[in-house]
Amino acid sequence: MKLASLRSGRDGALVVVSRDGQRFAAATAIAPTLQAALDDWRRTEPALRALAERLESGALAGSPLDPAALASPLPRAYEWVDGSAYVNHVLLVRQARKAEPPATLYTDPLVYQGGSGVLLGPREPIPLVDAAWGLDFEAELAVVLLDTPRGTRADQAEPHVALLMLVNDVTLRHLIPEELAKGFGFFCSKPASAFSPFAVTPDELGAAWRDGRVHLRLRSTLNGQLVGDPEAGPEMHFSFFQLIEHICKTRSYTAGTLLGSGTVSNADRARGISCLAERRMIETIDAGAPSTPFLKQGDRVTIEMLDPEGRSIFGAIAQEVVAG
Amino acid sequence: MKLASLRSGRDGALVVVSRDGQRFAAATAIAPTLQAALDDWRRTEPALRALAERLESGALAGSPLDPAALASPLPRAYEWVDGSAYVNHVLLVRQARKAEPPATLYTDPLVYQGGSGVLLGPREPIPLVDAAWGLDFEAELAVVLLDTPRGTRADQAEPHVALLMLVNDVTLRHLIPEELAKGFGFFCSKPASAFSPFAVTPDELGAAWRDGRVHLRLRSTLNGQLVGDPEAGPEMHFSFFQLIEHICKTRSYTAGTLLGSGTVSNADRARGISCLAERRMIETIDAGAPSTPFLKQGDRVTIEMLDPEGRSIFGAIAQEVVAG
Repeated sequence: MKLASLRSGRDGALVVVSRDGQRFAAATAIAPTLQAALDDWRRTEPALRALAERLESGALAGSPLDPAALASPLPRAYEWVDGSAYVNHVLLVRQARKAEPPATLYTDPLVYQGGSGVLLGPREPIPLVDAAWGLDFEAELAVVLLDTPRGTRADQAEPHVALLMLVNDVTLRHLIPEELAKGFGFFCSKPASAFSPFAVTPDELGAAWRDGRVHLRLRSTLNGQLVGDPEAGPEMHFSFFQLIEHICKTRSYTAGTLLGSGTVSNADRARGISCLAERRMIETIDAGAPSTPFLKQGDRVTIEMLDPEGRSIFGAIAQEVVAG
Repeated sequence: MKLASLRSGRDGALVVVSRDGQRFAAATAIAPTLQAALDDWRRTEPALRALAERLESGALAGSPLDPAALASPLPRAYEWVDGSAYVNHVLLVRQARKAEPPATLYTDPLVYQGGSGVLLGPREPIPLVDAAWGLDFEAELAVVLLDTPRGTRADQAEPHVALLMLVNDVTLRHLIPEELAKGFGFFCSKPASAFSPFAVTPDELGAAWRDGRVHLRLRSTLNGQLVGDPEAGPEMHFSFFQLIEHICKTRSYTAGTLLGSGTVSNADRARGISCLAERRMIETIDAGAPSTPFLKQGDRVTIEMLDPEGRSIFGAIAQEVVAG
């Protein structure tokens, strides 16, 4: 099942979307918003699935879907917890800012608390407020949790995962060092993230969803050129289930909490990059200095994941950088 | 005007509360929840004020208020951004964990992004999961923001402040060093915070609310003993308005965003402490080692602020530590 939110009010209007992403049917009679659906998932999920089946079978014609009419599936969320589970990314970006990787890199997951009150839709522009801030994209996966209590272990985590999405975790790369130097996290260096058109149930991924990882490639383009299509599965050192166990060590989560994978990254350079910081670090290693600039006005970024038949699972995040 | 939320569903049921905190009237006909009221404040604020006036004048009898029936005014919020604006607190806790204060301590505010999906009510117990984690309280003030756009300056901030509350920013002191060593912020070391019974409009504070600071003492007790009553005003190095300017440097905020002051702390030792870490540091300075233990099962913490006539403005946060 694919769900989406039409732009409407603060929290969108819930729709179900056909598997090909071309048609939608209003689901507001079941739940007005995706948050409301998640708050009452035991009741709403079967009703939404029944609606999606009628749309898929053609029993319900639905309406043509314009991705530009969509907000983020959750236009605002109660939490956005972002991991950094791809070790290759951590090693590269720390090298880039001349910081040591944490000693517990392979044993203790990295997560930070991001802002969740203002999230960008899949076609919303990325504001470039100050080019000196070093605007970058980061292509990631995220799961949407149901209520998840403190103490949930990795082997108990799967039923708490309701949906998956793609994320562009927009980052102000040059603000990170001064923010982290203060010891309180990334705060100012992480403006609003953007999410994919569709939030999909795990079964939409078929066998590609296993062990709390998505075993498909995540494609990023910059100005129409493919810049990376890393495998999201094998090099996700901590699975979503392990990340859930980690974040539940001391805290509980409400339905609709977003949990990100961190930038998808492969050690194999042939798979390219999911953020410009990685490319700049590779250039520095190879040539002594970066040659790729950070994002500038007019740049266009897309993030998408295709199934084995080449169909877009989540729809495409497709954003243009505009003057802020 | 004082507002509160009766425990009901995920987001509480909105009530207005009499100035003496003894009676309440249901406000759900105006807005079902405090979040819904904040989402439509221009319409709801005058209606809520009219209801509060009828309750205050006795035109409306209302019902007796039991603080134990209250949830946090916002049982879950879209963001919880916590500052650390009292320099004396920063200096003491950094000294306690042998960390340097940041070089920009007096010029660049410290804020971290906290978890906001699960917030504790004013009488909810604090779970003690593992005594080795070093459970501590932190007495703070917080403001509730209306929609606040990126770029809001300090001199534009006041109209964005809808309400004020008290906070117990529960902290797992011994988890902080390992969390901060990873460079991603406090994540696991900050479990759910608790909020005061009432969220009050700034005019409830009269002349004590000026320049984005609350010029009253914040009283904390531990097991019935007063442990601190620092002045919240003069030593708040960055006002709430300056904190708002800081957090708006790169981001916008939705109505209902919570912004905290950080632990209220005075350089004058006679004013006591608002968290045990400070007392332990003072003991270490004076005697070479801390003698006050962190919180243990059965300990009771209260946090309250009185007006010049001795009336409790926000009601009391009164929590007991229980086995987790």
